[in-house]
Amino acid sequence: MGKGGMSHGEGSKVGEENMAAWLVGINTLKIQPFLLPSVGPHDVRVRMKAVGICGSDVHYLKTMRCADFVVKEPMVIGHECAGIIEEVGEEVKHLVVGDRVALEPGISCWRCNLCREGRYNLCPEMKFFATPPVHGSLANQVVHPADLCFKLPENVSLEEGAMCEPLSVGVHACRRAEVGPETNVLVMGAGPIGLVTMLAARAFGVPRIVIVDVDENRLSVAKQLGADGIVQVTTNLEDVGSEVEQIQKAMGSNVDVTFDCAGFNKTMSTALAATRCGGKVCLVGMGHGIMTVPLTPAAAREVDVVGVFRYKNTWPLCLEFLTSGKIDVKPLITHRFGFSQKEVEDAFETSARGSNAIKVMFNL
Amino acid sequence: MGKGGMSHGEGSKVGEENMAAWLVGINTLKIQPFLLPSVGPHDVRVRMKAVGICGSDVHYLKTMRCADFVVKEPMVIGHECAGIIEEVGEEVKHLVVGDRVALEPGISCWRCNLCREGRYNLCPEMKFFATPPVHGSLANQVVHPADLCFKLPENVSLEEGAMCEPLSVGVHACRRAEVGPETNVLVMGAGPIGLVTMLAARAFGVPRIVIVDVDENRLSVAKQLGADGIVQVTTNLEDVGSEVEQIQKAMGSNVDVTFDCAGFNKTMSTALAATRCGGKVCLVGMGHGIMTVPLTPAAAREVDVVGVFRYKNTWPLCLEFLTSGKIDVKPLITHRFGFSQKEVEDAFETSARGSNAIKVMFNL
Amino acid sequence: MGKGGMSHGEGSKVGEENMAAWLVGINTLKIQPFLLPSVGPHDVRVRMKAVGICGSDVHYLKTMRCADFVVKEPMVIGHECAGIIEEVGEEVKHLVVGDRVALEPGISCWRCNLCREGRYNLCPEMKFFATPPVHGSLANQVVHPADLCFKLPENVSLEEGAMCEPLSVGVHACRRAEVGPETNVLVMGAGPIGLVTMLAARAFGVPRIVIVDVDENRLSVAKQLGADGIVQVTTNLEDVGSEVEQIQKAMGSNVDVTFDCAGFNKTMSTALAATRCGGKVCLVGMGHGIMTVPLTPAAAREVDVVGVFRYKNTWPLCLEFLTSGKIDVKPLITHRFGFSQKEVEDAFETSARGSNAIKVMFNL
Amino acid sequence: MGKGGMSHGEGSKVGEENMAAWLVGINTLKIQPFLLPSVGPHDVRVRMKAVGICGSDVHYLKTMRCADFVVKEPMVIGHECAGIIEEVGEEVKHLVVGDRVALEPGISCWRCNLCREGRYNLCPEMKFFATPPVHGSLANQVVHPADLCFKLPENVSLEEGAMCEPLSVGVHACRRAEVGPETNVLVMGAGPIGLVTMLAARAFGVPRIVIVDVDENRLSVAKQLGADGIVQVTTNLEDVGSEVEQIQKAMGSNVDVTFDCAGFNKTMSTALAATRCGGKVCLVGMGHGIMTVPLTPAAAREVDVVGVFRYKNTWPLCLEFLTSGKIDVKPLITHRFGFSQKEVEDAFETSARGSNAIKVMFNL
Repeated sequence: MGKGGMSHGEGSKVGEENMAAWLVGINTLKIQPFLLPSVGPHDVRVRMKAVGICGSDVHYLKTMRCADFVVKEPMVIGHECAGIIEEVGEEVKHLVVGDRVALEPGISCWRCNLCREGRYNLCPEMKFFATPPVHGSLANQVVHPADLCFKLPENVSLEEGAMCEPLSVGVHACRRAEVGPETNVLVMGAGPIGLVTMLAARAFGVPRIVIVDVDENRLSVAKQLGADGIVQVTTNLEDVGSEVEQIQKAMGSNVDVTFDCAGFNKTMSTALAATRCGGKVCLVGMGHGIMTVPLTPAAAREVDVVGVFRYKNTWPLCLEFLTSGKIDVKPLITHRFGFSQKEVEDAFETSARGSNAIKVMFNL
Repeated sequence: MGKGGMSHGEGSKVGEENMAAWLVGINTLKIQPFLLPSVGPHDVRVRMKAVGICGSDVHYLKTMRCADFVVKEPMVIGHECAGIIEEVGEEVKHLVVGDRVALEPGISCWRCNLCREGRYNLCPEMKFFATPPVHGSLANQVVHPADLCFKLPENVSLEEGAMCEPLSVGVHACRRAEVGPETNVLVMGAGPIGLVTMLAARAFGVPRIVIVDVDENRLSVAKQLGADGIVQVTTNLEDVGSEVEQIQKAMGSNVDVTFDCAGFNKTMSTALAATRCGGKVCLVGMGHGIMTVPLTPAAAREVDVVGVFRYKNTWPLCLEFLTSGKIDVKPLITHRFGFSQKEVEDAFETSARGSNAIKVMFNL
Repeated sequence: MGKGGMSHGEGSKVGEENMAAWLVGINTLKIQPFLLPSVGPHDVRVRMKAVGICGSDVHYLKTMRCADFVVKEPMVIGHECAGIIEEVGEEVKHLVVGDRVALEPGISCWRCNLCREGRYNLCPEMKFFATPPVHGSLANQVVHPADLCFKLPENVSLEEGAMCEPLSVGVHACRRAEVGPETNVLVMGAGPIGLVTMLAARAFGVPRIVIVDVDENRLSVAKQLGADGIVQVTTNLEDVGSEVEQIQKAMGSNVDVTFDCAGFNKTMSTALAATRCGGKVCLVGMGHGIMTVPLTPAAAREVDVVGVFRYKNTWPLCLEFLTSGKIDVKPLITHRFGFSQKEVEDAFETSARGSNAIKVMFNL
Repeated sequence: MGKGGMSHGEGSKVGEENMAAWLVGINTLKIQPFLLPSVGPHDVRVRMKAVGICGSDVHYLKTMRCADFVVKEPMVIGHECAGIIEEVGEEVKHLVVGDRVALEPGISCWRCNLCREGRYNLCPEMKFFATPPVHGSLANQVVHPADLCFKLPENVSLEEGAMCEPLSVGVHACRRAEVGPETNVLVMGAGPIGLVTMLAARAFGVPRIVIVDVDENRLSVAKQLGADGIVQVTTNLEDVGSEVEQIQKAMGSNVDVTFDCAGFNKTMSTALAATRCGGKVCLVGMGHGIMTVPLTPAAAREVDVVGVFRYKNTWPLCLEFLTSGKIDVKPLITHRFGFSQKEVEDAFETSARGSNAIKVMFNL
């Protein structure tokens, strides 16, 4: 099993200068050397070419924590990535040097019940890029298990490959909510996760998608990316009733599944009220932890709430969607930066400001 | 399609004196004549022999409403019932006069999408005993669709037949939560619904069941009825953490599925925290409408929340459980009353006091 | 419950001349009067405008039987149909006179276990157009339950409406085999059912579809209708091995689901061998009854065989596919006829010859 | 990942004499030294205490092959086993020296799609005890991955631990066929696999089980082990019709699921005909490869055929069933032998004769 990018520097690659973006303190990133571990028989060494910035990366940078995870020691950041194979372990059969690959960031144990039952995303032993204490992938090179590196089809770029990671969140949510050609979908929130969820739902065959947000610009982007209907909402709980009416009017039929990609009391209250009897609400966003929402009336209409944590087995499907053109993620990449100290700082600042940035991408 | 017990008196049965318990105002029940509709070709006329009191009946009596349903005109109460066939419609083939039957109380439309997809419990046109404006079954006789009348096996009593209704709630919850020999179950609340859910879970093959309540006596009853573990809890939110520990210790393994049969902030918070990654919480009780609970952290562990509304296709399974002895509901019947004005009033008062009453039953 | 088109003539519509195509003996169809039943409160009267010929219709004409069903008395034929509402029952709310509708042909009992569990297509009491002793719909008018009449969107023609029936077979097969964007599909047989299954699979998001047939012309049509790969096969069992190789090469990846729309020993043997471990074979065609096939080796690879009988709840989805343009059935309609004695005979002869006819349609 | 018992002798345990039963030719077993591999960090070394003989072991002995697997070099036989931990790898946390454990025999790759999706039993890289070229476990000691060794509860004996392997076949079949308290079950064949499937079905809550066989003694055993009904059948295909009637009479209701634990044309024909519309037939036995059966009529009633291959994630559930007493496998162990050359030969001969032997067990 690969020890990959989460190595703390034990092992080394003599004569190779490998630089990485280290999170060393609040609001402090430093480009510093990162010693690579040796390449195990089932591992590959990958030269990183495209790395995206995720909301969680920004959260770690601002607070040194995210959800229950706390950064206690300097950690290499980044986990949305793609690159080119430079070395393959002796047992690796499906990849060769020069292959362009997208990397799935999490290494699970394959020994626990959850792994064995096919829910490896919930593995308690998971080692995941840039989730402390595991190092991330914003580096010139990383070592990673070969079975988590997926060869890019010819017509899929390295940047698109890196986008498989955020897109996987949408794909996993669509699978958990069981959307398809018979489910009309509401998406709460038109940020990066709302948008990838919308794109994934479309690729799963969803006939009608309405998306809501407080921000007019975001809605405009969503509309351009294919939303059938958009509804601008407020942050006032009192507006839930009237907004549900607007949403249902925009849908023109029942809402079968709602993805709450914001995760606030207001959005979840709207989601629960807007979804039809027997439908599903999938809670993707994490705005509020403790939530105050009308859960009981929803349960009494058999509206189920399904949760999502990361993803599993999503890269092949993402690549299928990208290569077939069912999903185009290129419009989501709004900003690009190189890999210098200055550009790394600028890139994170751009991502943190958020307003007009969807996805900020490093080209290494 | 039967017009059954929900008739408002149009039609009649000449020379037959049919009395029923009418809810005529807050805290006011009157035994008064109830004109039966004619027996349609697919209907039967049933002489009621056993009718139980449900929490919703008490709620209607105290407030003239329950959830979103409001009693605006006098309404016959009661919906947990069994009786003996006195007349069968001309098209009825599976029942004859003299058959002892348990009655499923809800008549769905079979024309809407939900009916056609097998989720008839969610039918928006549902006509359900004692849900306004439909009359109930606490009466000498009712007319009901024959396909909602289930013949009792020889070794199942009429009282047990009436118990199929509350038991159905537990059975439906178990189906929705997909419990079985591989799921360890936590039940929040040891009231009548908590107890039937526990009994149903056991019959579905659940290996270990822990049940919690604030009331020591209820827990003692639950223990006698087969709980593997009991935990007495408080109503203080601050105790959630320590109580989760006690619950997990009592379980001796993961909690795979939790049934919250109380439905309060406290119970649901405990349910969400106690359930393992990838498990399910089934919200059965309706204590609080708007809930303040840690929904997001649970969703991020893929703990899903599934709702229940009544039941569907449960009578045959309930009768199978009763006739095979997998479930014994007799200990749940703690009080019995006849069908006089005085006894009806006493019975409801007994049920409303709650403390030591589990199920109050009328013998007509 | 509507008594609809399956009436044997009891009831009548005074002053109305309603003609229908009666199957009165082997190879003998007669256009004769057909007395309409009265319109019940939940029924509608529909003027037929488009009726297609199904393989089963031809089978009845040639042999007076199909599978286990035997025509013992003269029977009106036809069941793929659409028309215009001329009269609505008093309880009908979702349709008005003048509405263009497609008709789902089967009336189930809604009282049996299978109906109640949502599998009404398996109802033992089913009354289905042109399945003896129930009359069909190749007539100027029929009376039918309103909930089985689906209003056509503006951009869907009456002929396309009639095509919902054969398309429903493909849709139901796709649902039973659980195809979607993650399943590559093989279709055995490029006849009408193979083609609608292919179109349905595509609409469910299937990325790659290979279709095989013995007939080059049919394969050419399939290719034009969107097959990703075609393989011409023989009827020799000895060729299974090499053809499986050709199929897998044409697919370029695993076959996840195979639809056998022919149903012969040869096609099913190929289907079982070509499908990946853990995949599914859906048996749609009915070429052979008793089959000689390598079932055990397939079972030992957990290749499951799923059956299909007609369809359920498919009309809304078919109409969604048609109105959105995800499916275009117009190219399948290869021949059109009017409703005279001569044309009816010619139409059935055209359909029976088969070679270049896909769907033969009457315009009434 | 453990290299365990499937090592071909490379590696060694100095000063330790480890003997094993080698299959060296048709009908020829020899007890000879077996060099143990070294114990990897996630492995354990187990002293075997109980090893059962499976039908496949006998098949290998008689023919040097089983299904598609061929024994080309001498191979240690045996795969139903339990023993005592003698050494644990440095990373092993859940086991200590002295623990009594049952062994799951198959080591999957955890890198392929099937492993990652939770269907590891279908892994094409599977290394499975006594499936050539992998060595088995009828030896004094084996080295095996710790996560495939399951600690026995105190009240479960080592012999019962070894029985988890055949019992797992029944448990996996029950899961795949989705049996439970609402499915009445028919079992074709009362041999060892038919019996464990019956016991597993009961533990899953199946209310009524009918079992059939040609052998009166086997049926008598099945009856003692809890069958609700038994039907003695013939091997004549002509009797299918009358036997189906007998079976349905013995069941007293629909057959929802049938397990064909024999796998012959006759048994599968009976299974397909006896199972209700919408039910399932699970093909477990492997009597005939190419089958001649009425598959099409069954498919047209939506009777699905589901296959099984070995099992996955079954040991914890088997141990739960054994420790709770829901399943008692002790009556299945009819013969016991020690581990000398003579006794090994006698044991296999006893198992091969079959008639009155159910399970033959070695005590090492």
